[in-house]
Amino acid sequence: MNAEIDDFYAVIPAGGIGSRLWPLSRADAPKFLHDLTGSGHSLLRDTWDRLLPLTGPDRIAVVTGRAHRAAVEGELPDLTDQNIFLESEPRDSSAAIGLAAAILHRRNPNVVIGSFAADHVIIGPRVFQMAVEQAVATARAGYIVTIGIQPTEPAVGFGYIKRSTDELVVDGAPEATLVEHFVEKPDLETAKAYLAERTYLWNAGMFISRADVLLDQLARTKPELHAGLLELAEVWDDRDRRGPAVDRIWPKLEKIAIDYSVAEPAAEAGRLAVIPGHFDWDDVGDFASLAKLMSRGRPDDFAILGSGARVLTDASSGILVSQTKRVISVVGVRDIVIVDTPDALLVTTKEQAQRVKGVVDALKLTGRGDVL
Amino acid sequence: MNAEIDDFYAVIPAGGIGSRLWPLSRADAPKFLHDLTGSGHSLLRDTWDRLLPLTGPDRIAVVTGRAHRAAVEGELPDLTDQNIFLESEPRDSSAAIGLAAAILHRRNPNVVIGSFAADHVIIGPRVFQMAVEQAVATARAGYIVTIGIQPTEPAVGFGYIKRSTDELVVDGAPEATLVEHFVEKPDLETAKAYLAERTYLWNAGMFISRADVLLDQLARTKPELHAGLLELAEVWDDRDRRGPAVDRIWPKLEKIAIDYSVAEPAAEAGRLAVIPGHFDWDDVGDFASLAKLMSRGRPDDFAILGSGARVLTDASSGILVSQTKRVISVVGVRDIVIVDTPDALLVTTKEQAQRVKGVVDALKLTGRGDVL
Repeated sequence: MNAEIDDFYAVIPAGGIGSRLWPLSRADAPKFLHDLTGSGHSLLRDTWDRLLPLTGPDRIAVVTGRAHRAAVEGELPDLTDQNIFLESEPRDSSAAIGLAAAILHRRNPNVVIGSFAADHVIIGPRVFQMAVEQAVATARAGYIVTIGIQPTEPAVGFGYIKRSTDELVVDGAPEATLVEHFVEKPDLETAKAYLAERTYLWNAGMFISRADVLLDQLARTKPELHAGLLELAEVWDDRDRRGPAVDRIWPKLEKIAIDYSVAEPAAEAGRLAVIPGHFDWDDVGDFASLAKLMSRGRPDDFAILGSGARVLTDASSGILVSQTKRVISVVGVRDIVIVDTPDALLVTTKEQAQRVKGVVDALKLTGRGDVL
Repeated sequence: MNAEIDDFYAVIPAGGIGSRLWPLSRADAPKFLHDLTGSGHSLLRDTWDRLLPLTGPDRIAVVTGRAHRAAVEGELPDLTDQNIFLESEPRDSSAAIGLAAAILHRRNPNVVIGSFAADHVIIGPRVFQMAVEQAVATARAGYIVTIGIQPTEPAVGFGYIKRSTDELVVDGAPEATLVEHFVEKPDLETAKAYLAERTYLWNAGMFISRADVLLDQLARTKPELHAGLLELAEVWDDRDRRGPAVDRIWPKLEKIAIDYSVAEPAAEAGRLAVIPGHFDWDDVGDFASLAKLMSRGRPDDFAILGSGARVLTDASSGILVSQTKRVISVVGVRDIVIVDTPDALLVTTKEQAQRVKGVVDALKLTGRGDVL
């Protein structure tokens, strides 16, 4: 049993569309609103449910676009009005998480916040929660903390975190170490070496920190962005002043990932700690990743996501994502990826799934944005 | 320029659904009603247009199911009422062609008939017409005549006709020879030997003969079938008596292909002649065949049939048959076959295309006949 952690606030940035999952993910139906695990819930809702034992329903905030407000509130009926932070346009993760940090810090100067992507898959919520508990304990000690996933294979699709071998003595966080540095997505040879070495973890983009510590790091690295966020936070809880301030300040904020504005500078300064995550995690970044998730342990099977389709397969493997009621027959194809939606169809292979982003770019360029 | 051939009547049996082209071909939209060549016309209409110079519009008859009457008349506005012979149910080609022979013989005892499938593709109509002219000349001399296609590759999907090497001296038919025998679909090794030997032709299922000669052969082989057809022909042009006779006699007629009831027995008896066809011909029996037709000479291309789809391909080859307006993206797949219709989707490969018939059988068995 987890007990709620006092003064810990979870922040869920729900922003990215997930272009590499087109035509399933769309501008008006981004990845976090889909049920990609067959759980019966959206990834966003799964994220909420996973955090709930740590925070209760009143201390989870969601940062999302104005266009997604209704959908987010539909998925999360217990999300309170003061915990939804609406962006007028996407400004990347430093602005999104920094805004939440600034607002929550203003409301409670001692708050510890943790940001968790709205559209990742985690299997083993209890193990996840134990890692967060260690991370919060480490954050209380003044560190910015990330949870790095213990690799289970030489993945080339994720960035890595190199742990220090020196222990970090923090009460309540026996596995905490400092981070030496971050590594961009490696080639296969390098990934194999990382896997063998066991001091490399996958960067899952989870950051836990005291709000004041995070804002302090941001002030050092990106002072203008920091100033803009404080100015917004100052008026945020005044309904009359919030709107005009957002319209004036938000569009000018620098677009930069929090990895670059906070995590890497903190690592360089010896202020970034990491807790290893021993749970199954995936960012479900493309259809190859989704296929792996869906056919867990049985890669030669043909897996189907979506209950409407009437499907008939013969001598085939791969995945079908169906959002229609059509009869779909798949005959004698291997490792295929089929995504069938009312207005768009994608056919590719697991191996070629990373090309899908190029399709989305091409659709934009050729004036077919209506299906994006 | 062809001149019309007096007393020559073309018969087009328009019956088969073309199950191996599901979900393009359906019970209510059989293969012969589709434009598979991008000509802008259905295969049925192409067949009509190819025969027209030989017969004029008044001497082409179509044998089809009652359910297809409206569609056939829509495709062939010049088809006259007395030239459409409606089946109450499918009884195979002996009954269909035999009925036409019996009716046309009753109307004109000297008539020469030629039967040509409604759903084959022929490139080179003038060369086709020259072959028919030789066949008609040979038929007048009392032979049952087939047009065998000069093979261009060691095809294993067609039956073969073994020509006699002895010349047949017929005025107006310099290429006529007798047929030694028919051969069922061979294996690749045998097909290669046939191709090298040059006395084997593809059986394209075209038969030209005096109606009386054809009926005489049928009387010898299948006397009951012959008797039933004569009884039908006797009342056919009496509107009041036709319907009841069809209802009474037609369902009891033996279902047998004309190859077995007429052609093979005639070959054994030395009464079957063959004219070599030097035109490109294909029965478009499955999607592999359609793919070959669509990508003529460029098998690495991605070919699209259907003008409605908005298609985006990347590093792919194969064919897309589209009957929808959806955006379709095909990424990094080779030799793929995609058939996209409003209520059914098929994904297979050229190599596996022959399995499609199995899908249709399975759909029947599993109660999904609504999409057949």
